[in-house]
Formats: sequence, structure tokens, C-alpha cells
Amino acid sequence: MQKIAVDMDGVLADVYSQFIKMHHQEFGESISLESVYGKTEGEAFVHCRKYIGTESFFRDAPIIDGCRNVLEQLNQEYEVYLVSAAMEFPWSLSQKFEWIKQHFPFIGWQQIVFCGSKQIIAADIMIDDHFKNLDHFTGRTILFTQPHNILREAGRHQRVNTWYEIEKILL
Amino acid sequence: MQKIAVDMDGVLADVYSQFIKMHHQEFGESISLESVYGKTEGEAFVHCRKYIGTESFFRDAPIIDGCRNVLEQLNQEYEVYLVSAAMEFPWSLSQKFEWIKQHFPFIGWQQIVFCGSKQIIAADIMIDDHFKNLDHFTGRTILFTQPHNILREAGRHQRVNTWYEIEKILL
Repeated sequence: MQKIAVDMDGVLADVYSQFIKMHHQEFGESISLESVYGKTEGEAFVHCRKYIGTESFFRDAPIIDGCRNVLEQLNQEYEVYLVSAAMEFPWSLSQKFEWIKQHFPFIGWQQIVFCGSKQIIAADIMIDDHFKNLDHFTGRTILFTQPHNILREAGRHQRVNTWYEIEKILL
Repeated sequence: MQKIAVDMDGVLADVYSQFIKMHHQEFGESISLESVYGKTEGEAFVHCRKYIGTESFFRDAPIIDGCRNVLEQLNQEYEVYLVSAAMEFPWSLSQKFEWIKQHFPFIGWQQIVFCGSKQIIAADIMIDDHFKNLDHFTGRTILFTQPHNILREAGRHQRVNTWYEIEKILL
């Protein structure tokens, strides 16, 4: 069975919704996704790190459209691992664990990885929204579109815009 | 630079001291290491899982003799990752993170991995006390002696009994 390493933030967890909501709560300003194309999250939302530091940022993040159903199917045909670079935000570890249990009850604890650098990850396929993770990976790489990466050429990575595209290419 | 994946429990963290201490507190019985040779931790300590479930089991674990100094030197010459199968005990995640910061301040968050199965780990060398982790690993494997593995032939793995031996073979 092929191993797939699936990123969480920006692939399963809709963190932009959280940023936009919290920015609006703080400044009363509505930020559109289009207006932050090509910007890092830190450039797009000035208090980005403060929002990430809250107790419920990860716990309350909505899931990205279509991911639950496709992930459940992938879980039948592949060895699926959810791999999150969570160690930069150690307070998020328990939030993220609970979030996974809530939204993806078919994922066992054996399949969860919280790391710092993803250069330690061995799999056949990696799905991620960050070039810094995909660029070091030697297997098949799938770039999940998010505003921060949307203006950049995918290069050797295969770009997908939705989980429905992932369903088509992997199932 | 070669990557080394270093296990925590039973390699850096002296969990047997914790088991023996807690068993003594509960039953007033002193268990020697020799008396549990060849037994799993669960066989050796009937309330093993209860002890692991306490708030301070991992936080208060002493470090194994010699590991701090050798790990600090390894960290200069290798790409070191501390890899713990912590996901089975999700309440331990923050304890373990704090424990690493306390005892190994030279280890950055980028170098910490909390996982379930270690079959997702890519490195050149793995140091672990469990055959189930080493047996799947394709790189160089170093078996750290603990009572549960001491009676078994190391097979293709290289057995070490102390961190001083690791210093000799890797530095």
C-alpha cells in the first residue's frame, strides 16, 4: 500500500476562514481571499500569530470542502498519515489531536504525526500547500492551492485546487 | 549530514525508574530491573498504563545516564530528530515537549516528532529500544538495551547498553 502524507493546515483545516473571521472581529474589516493572493499569511493578516496563539484557533477551524469524504476513501486504498508541522505552536498539539478525532474519526492515532521539519517524513505521496515542505520530498508531490501559493508556478509539483481533484487523480 | 531518529522513552527518558517508583508507592514492593528481564512493561508492572496516564509520568522522568552530553555532540555532527510514538498517549504531548525543552535546550522545535507509527520516519540511523520500530526501518538500526528487550537476540540491529557506547560508535 502506498503511503500518503496529508498536511493539515491549508489542506484539511480551513485556516484562512479563521484568519479572516478573527481579523474582522478585531478590525471590523473584511478581507477577501483574492486580496491576499501571493502574500504569506503573516503579510496578509498583521495579527496572524496572535490568532494562531488563541485557545481555539485550530479547534474551531472548519474543514476544507470535500476533504472528509475523499480522505475516508483514501484511507481504504492508501496508508494515510496526517502530518502537521505543529511543533512551532506546541500549545496547538492537543487542539489538533481533538480536531482530528472530531472530524476524521476513521483516522487512528497510529496515523497522526506532529513534527517540526517535514524532512523526516517518508512516504510515497505528499499533499501540502507549502513549497518548503514539498521541495524536499522525493516522492510524488501535490500542491494544494491556497492564496499564499496561488501566484507561483507549481514547478515539479502537481497543483490541485480542490479535494474533488484529489479524488480524481488518486482514487 | 546524516539524519538520526532518536527515540525518547527507554532511550532518553528513564521510564523504568518511573514505573518502579510508582509501583513501590502503590504496593510497597520494590521491583528490580533483573526481575523483569524479558517481560513487556505491561507484564512487569500491572498498573503500567495507569502510571503512564498520570500528569507527571513523562514530565518527571529522569534522563538516562550520559544521554545529554552525547546528544549535544551528535547534534553538532548529525541532523538529530527526537521521535516519540507519543500519539497513543495524547495527554503526554505537552509533557513531552516541556521535558525536551528542560533537558535538551539545544534541540529546536524543528527537530521534534510525535507520531503514532514510526513507519513514516525517514532517516539514516534509528536508535530505539523496540524491535517493532527498528524492524521496519531500512537504515542503520541501533537497539538500546532495556529490560523488555534484553533477552532477545538483536538480529540485524546493533545492540548498545549505554550512551557511552553510542558515543563510541557514532562520534
